[in-house]
Amino acid sequence: MEALKQKIREEGIVLSDQVLKVDAFLNHQIDPRLMQQVGHEFAERFHGQGVTKIVTIEASGIAPAVMAGLELGVPVIFARKFQSLTLKNDLLISKVFSFTKQTESTIAISAKHLTAADHVLVIDDFLANGHAAKALIDLIQQAGASVAGLGIVIEKSFQEGRGLLESEGYRIEALARVASLADGQVTFLD
Amino acid sequence: MEALKQKIREEGIVLSDQVLKVDAFLNHQIDPRLMQQVGHEFAERFHGQGVTKIVTIEASGIAPAVMAGLELGVPVIFARKFQSLTLKNDLLISKVFSFTKQTESTIAISAKHLTAADHVLVIDDFLANGHAAKALIDLIQQAGASVAGLGIVIEKSFQEGRGLLESEGYRIEALARVASLADGQVTFLD
Repeated sequence: MEALKQKIREEGIVLSDQVLKVDAFLNHQIDPRLMQQVGHEFAERFHGQGVTKIVTIEASGIAPAVMAGLELGVPVIFARKFQSLTLKNDLLISKVFSFTKQTESTIAISAKHLTAADHVLVIDDFLANGHAAKALIDLIQQAGASVAGLGIVIEKSFQEGRGLLESEGYRIEALARVASLADGQVTFLD
Repeated sequence: MEALKQKIREEGIVLSDQVLKVDAFLNHQIDPRLMQQVGHEFAERFHGQGVTKIVTIEASGIAPAVMAGLELGVPVIFARKFQSLTLKNDLLISKVFSFTKQTESTIAISAKHLTAADHVLVIDDFLANGHAAKALIDLIQQAGASVAGLGIVIEKSFQEGRGLLESEGYRIEALARVASLADGQVTFLD
């Protein structure tokens, strides 16, 4: 998706060979027009696949997920990090290890918002090692629902997330695929 | 806003005289079409006021804020709760006490995304005692920016938030004003 890649080139900040900061338009400040384009692109790629719900994770996945949900005409559920929950009964729960923060966190979805009849598109801001995506898939499977695929805004293609998820048969659509962050430069895969 | 009030009547759950749960369409599962209507309503009410940025707080404020930002053509910044921050330098910081959780939390905005030239619309999902709104206003003032007003999805009008903020001269536009949650019933003010 060219508009997204251009925004990453112009406003992304390479903090290290592993870390790309996109606080200017996705992770802290949000560019709503770009998010609309991102949502449109996800909707096009998963159109006609029978998606009934979108699942994402707070907080940075919400904007792209809601824009995709608007175009696909389906509700969006954002998995909550455990400390932000007010009600703790009737929950589906999974764990995510964050390499960035070196902490394990617990995420949850209320069981009543997902059923075995749902066919779910997972949307997230980043795909790196695939841990967050795997935890979201785990929640969806606990509900007995099926996974339509994963819509990723930015994939760090030099990490193992895509390989891991593809080996389990999941379809991944990433709108910007970063091949390398070496020498402070963002290089895209295609 | 009638569509919102109808949704609250149909899908809101009154947990106590103080607590209205709207996890079905705002705080956990999100109805993107309703959020678009909410964003449109905020944009209409603050059109022509010279708004340059929207500030909200993760996670439930993001969907309505991004939809409003799309219509007003301005970026959205979501204040982060401190534990979710990856970069901790150059931050504006404030504290919020949550009565629901009986905990104090720290919220932050990167100083570089707000300047003294900004005229900021604050958007949040709920207005109750006004503590979250006051903390967001504090962050905006630390940046030297001005406040255009507050756009609130659901106001608990039986709590002191509106009175507190109006006494300080802030304009508040709430799309659903809840007069009472007594006897398990939602009663609107108008």
